[in-house]
Amino acid sequence: MKIGLKWIVSFCVITLVAFGGLFWSPAVDSPDAGDFLSEDKIVGADVAWILAAAGLVLLMTPGLSFFYGGMVGKKNVISTMLQSFIALGVISILWVVVGFSLSFGDSLGFEINGVHYGIIGNPLSYPFFNHVGVLPHKMMATTIPFVLFALFQMKFAVITPALITGSFAERVRFISYLLFMVLFSIFIYTPLCHMVWHPDGLLNKYFGIRDFAGGTVVHMSAGFAALAGAMFLGNRKNPHHEPSNIPYVLLGTGMLWFGWFGFNAGSALSANASAAMAFGTTTIASASAMMTWIFFDRINGRSVSALGACIGAVVGLVAITPGCGFVSIPESLFIGFLAAVVSNLMMNWKALKKIDDTLDVFACHGVGGIMGMILTAVFAHGENASLLHGGIGVFAHHMAALALVSAFTFFGSLLLYKLTDSIITLRVSEESENAGLDLSQHQESFR
Amino acid sequence: MKIGLKWIVSFCVITLVAFGGLFWSPAVDSPDAGDFLSEDKIVGADVAWILAAAGLVLLMTPGLSFFYGGMVGKKNVISTMLQSFIALGVISILWVVVGFSLSFGDSLGFEINGVHYGIIGNPLSYPFFNHVGVLPHKMMATTIPFVLFALFQMKFAVITPALITGSFAERVRFISYLLFMVLFSIFIYTPLCHMVWHPDGLLNKYFGIRDFAGGTVVHMSAGFAALAGAMFLGNRKNPHHEPSNIPYVLLGTGMLWFGWFGFNAGSALSANASAAMAFGTTTIASASAMMTWIFFDRINGRSVSALGACIGAVVGLVAITPGCGFVSIPESLFIGFLAAVVSNLMMNWKALKKIDDTLDVFACHGVGGIMGMILTAVFAHGENASLLHGGIGVFAHHMAALALVSAFTFFGSLLLYKLTDSIITLRVSEESENAGLDLSQHQESFR
Amino acid sequence: MKIGLKWIVSFCVITLVAFGGLFWSPAVDSPDAGDFLSEDKIVGADVAWILAAAGLVLLMTPGLSFFYGGMVGKKNVISTMLQSFIALGVISILWVVVGFSLSFGDSLGFEINGVHYGIIGNPLSYPFFNHVGVLPHKMMATTIPFVLFALFQMKFAVITPALITGSFAERVRFISYLLFMVLFSIFIYTPLCHMVWHPDGLLNKYFGIRDFAGGTVVHMSAGFAALAGAMFLGNRKNPHHEPSNIPYVLLGTGMLWFGWFGFNAGSALSANASAAMAFGTTTIASASAMMTWIFFDRINGRSVSALGACIGAVVGLVAITPGCGFVSIPESLFIGFLAAVVSNLMMNWKALKKIDDTLDVFACHGVGGIMGMILTAVFAHGENASLLHGGIGVFAHHMAALALVSAFTFFGSLLLYKLTDSIITLRVSEESENAGLDLSQHQESFR
Repeated sequence: MKIGLKWIVSFCVITLVAFGGLFWSPAVDSPDAGDFLSEDKIVGADVAWILAAAGLVLLMTPGLSFFYGGMVGKKNVISTMLQSFIALGVISILWVVVGFSLSFGDSLGFEINGVHYGIIGNPLSYPFFNHVGVLPHKMMATTIPFVLFALFQMKFAVITPALITGSFAERVRFISYLLFMVLFSIFIYTPLCHMVWHPDGLLNKYFGIRDFAGGTVVHMSAGFAALAGAMFLGNRKNPHHEPSNIPYVLLGTGMLWFGWFGFNAGSALSANASAAMAFGTTTIASASAMMTWIFFDRINGRSVSALGACIGAVVGLVAITPGCGFVSIPESLFIGFLAAVVSNLMMNWKALKKIDDTLDVFACHGVGGIMGMILTAVFAHGENASLLHGGIGVFAHHMAALALVSAFTFFGSLLLYKLTDSIITLRVSEESENAGLDLSQHQESFR
Repeated sequence: MKIGLKWIVSFCVITLVAFGGLFWSPAVDSPDAGDFLSEDKIVGADVAWILAAAGLVLLMTPGLSFFYGGMVGKKNVISTMLQSFIALGVISILWVVVGFSLSFGDSLGFEINGVHYGIIGNPLSYPFFNHVGVLPHKMMATTIPFVLFALFQMKFAVITPALITGSFAERVRFISYLLFMVLFSIFIYTPLCHMVWHPDGLLNKYFGIRDFAGGTVVHMSAGFAALAGAMFLGNRKNPHHEPSNIPYVLLGTGMLWFGWFGFNAGSALSANASAAMAFGTTTIASASAMMTWIFFDRINGRSVSALGACIGAVVGLVAITPGCGFVSIPESLFIGFLAAVVSNLMMNWKALKKIDDTLDVFACHGVGGIMGMILTAVFAHGENASLLHGGIGVFAHHMAALALVSAFTFFGSLLLYKLTDSIITLRVSEESENAGLDLSQHQESFR
Repeated sequence: MKIGLKWIVSFCVITLVAFGGLFWSPAVDSPDAGDFLSEDKIVGADVAWILAAAGLVLLMTPGLSFFYGGMVGKKNVISTMLQSFIALGVISILWVVVGFSLSFGDSLGFEINGVHYGIIGNPLSYPFFNHVGVLPHKMMATTIPFVLFALFQMKFAVITPALITGSFAERVRFISYLLFMVLFSIFIYTPLCHMVWHPDGLLNKYFGIRDFAGGTVVHMSAGFAALAGAMFLGNRKNPHHEPSNIPYVLLGTGMLWFGWFGFNAGSALSANASAAMAFGTTTIASASAMMTWIFFDRINGRSVSALGACIGAVVGLVAITPGCGFVSIPESLFIGFLAAVVSNLMMNWKALKKIDDTLDVFACHGVGGIMGMILTAVFAHGENASLLHGGIGVFAHHMAALALVSAFTFFGSLLLYKLTDSIITLRVSEESENAGLDLSQHQESFR
């Protein structure tokens, strides 16, 4: 086999990164001076829960690989799974080197009337996790070591590009995907994360949007990038196939649901009542969406299927994510119901069917994320938090933000696909596609 | 496909429930007045552990779907898995609407000599989780938000009907099963739960029975309902088949074992020494039952199988459940041993073989639950807790309760099967059975 | 089927153990006198985290069964899985009866200049977990119940023999393996555990080696026992085959990675900053090794495979285990990189290929463990902890310990294989090997 330059470059990059970190002498922060609190501010119970929660969020990525892997055709199971799984490698490293800085570093942005609005973090704030240590930060997650906050956030960055892969499954070149993933994470994910979750972030501070656990940052961004990807790569040659393994989809759904408790209830960043409420809304929205999906399928003449139950459950989880800590349990029941109906309609909408989004990522994650953002903007409790608790002005602000995020993630991703494609062709050859990516990309097969 | 009225009704029900909750304005409880403590009584460490534990118990239901799904024939894998999985939807919603109230609401019952004995909770106590919020309850789980207690308990309610499905696998109609599940949960599970676990419950207060983590409430009730189900539905046409996928059984067992730590050690409702002891007895009873099962199989001329190891492990987990927080570790070693021998004998007992309990749910969960209840009544530590720590009178009380529970769950379930059957036929047609439920009920297949 | 004496003996042993524990009246320890602290010294947050962590470590063994089971040929999937799984039964029981005493009981050893150096624990210290109760120990895990410490450690003892099985997969007799496992645990694992982790242990006190989470105790010992096993049992008749199921390998890797957080971050034995740091180094070393492995494979003309990604990730986890709590995150990035390169070279080294180590356990766990021990001895922070923080003398001490451990575990295991083989032949007959162990040992099959 001829070894392409791109692989040699890849190995050089990982080598440079591995050695590079060693030459970085880590800063020693004195507590209470600067940005950090002293170690005795750490609350053991919060550490216990966030350790567990971060582990749970990690499990979501293998869970996703089974959720997606079970749905594709027999010749693309392993490649689809690996596309999710590999994000645990690529993005974790990227996050340490520069991603965390770009997301949560000192805010870079612009000023209006003397007020600063952040667009992206300073890449020099925490390169190689410099300053990211045992002391809690004064403004972010004040009761746990800053490193634990950074690791919890890392898992969110990891799963986002993995979510995208479902849309262009069965036709993307592995190495091009790795490159796209890196570009997406740097140019779409980290600024969005900064704008939503950094105390000075634009969407947070100016638009006042609420995103408890990443409905906007994770699911909307993945959904729009998925739509752009399916459009850019074009339709598959043979798009029709049976799902290869429904039990894998059930397993993946179970792992996702389990992991999502870490995702949502962990986003309270503390073992407190807010985490407990988020746990409740998460499980109920998912239950509600699952039942709604299968009954809605049936009254529209489709069969009640395990696949439908799984997709419904995941749509419910997506939709409750931004609001999970802000709404009541009866409201979450309604959110799950409405998101399931709308997503189901979108998934079966003929116009959208023309775009070959292999596993309906946009209809599930994109639409689920949008519904979540809208319904959070309707229901969120708290002063000036939403339509019902603040009024139409607040709601309009949130809808403006929604439009902004949609445009940014969709067109931004489209640009990055173009850029990637100009460096390494994104789509595999027709032969490779016919053979299936398992064999053509990885010389492995699932029988 | 013609759409039956039953599906339209089902969709209307979920719609009504989803909207219904919105019209319920949630009560605001003032701390310390009424039933609730103030928020500062919450103990972070307990919240951290119960959040994790509740997540673990959720994972048991997908675990069960693999444990059962791997055992049935190739044509019924997906349908069997879905029967477990769907309980996460149906029962979670039911629990919010009325199940929790029936289980832990204000006690309804009767008085003898001025003492109140509870039979069931008041459905109007916590409809749509009204009053179920961040404040801890004064009498139940006093150190964690009441909503977290309610969610932890929810997972127990979810898995119970899922356990039953193994007995009538390969021949039950999906929609009828959904209906039965709802009826079982309302009329069998919630009163039993109330009688055992509510401070004023009859079996608790009058009979003094101990059930640390649900041996009686969950496993005995599921076991007897399973027996009744297998009898009511009748034998399968072609009962002999090879298990479709032993690795799924191993995976399911691993997930169940892992989740069971949440089930048992979480039932301490606190991150304390009692949770640690329950963790220990749980793992040891399971280990002991696993080894006993395979050796006992072998000396009876059967082969040492992975299937046997898995069934043995689960029987051990079932048997230790009621006593896990009350017995010592050497005692748990003995409980696992004895339960495995008795369950194994029952499973291979010819008389019982006449009833086509597809996956031997009664022999495992029923008998395991009975053995657990008896052995807890023998060994439980504490004043007047058992035969060895209280005497024969205490033991007799517990045995009377055992008889009562057995009769209630068996005949109660039988009645509910009859009722369900009179509304929608429970058993699929012979054609559908021959085709397998995967295809005939869900138009899906596992190859 | 004729029932061999060995099975009757096995059943008698489990019976004796089950009854034996009942005749042991447990000691009641008075707090503060003797070895134990009072119950109020228990820290809830630490209990919450270690309960979760112990559960996570349990899950690693089923995880391992999928990691290995997916790699072997179709005729040996179930038997390979069961070999891992059964350790949960055998070793858990052994640990209660005598293993924990041998590992952490009162130190037996020798004196030099009036200083005691421990070799093994006194088997009479904690037989049947006597004295192992709710009170924390004064010298080991001082903030959690001693029983929780003992259970957490149990899971480490469980997975070690399971790790070995990969080397002699597809040709070992089940019952002989059970016997070997018991002998290995008693004569290799427990003394090594004592010497490394008991405060008075020889390798700890005299050689000053650091092993945060078991790189030496678990992975090196398993690696050398695996090498000895592959050599002793000899090569398979038909060593070439395709991995039976790559998704199982991915699932196993996901479960291992998830569980490893409990393994490594749990080894802090507290929900503190050290646990958070260990969590970080663990995830980064794994990510780094995964990426390094696939790129290194590719530039050496092999394909980028899901199997490679999984093996790489596990090698990274192995290598970081001893140092996870002692090194920085950039250092862990380097450790993952270097371990992956060296393990990959070893795995593809022709000389080593002559030994039929079925699943390359030595190249992964042995070499990964060695690399971990060396790199910990280079990088570990703290006074006199390593080459960089203490000097060449410290490093030399650690290397001497490495040589000692290697020789002890390799030759010790070889001896135990010989001993086992003289009691029950270790290798199955040629017929059985050709039929596959699933069928010949367990009469089960995976299709």
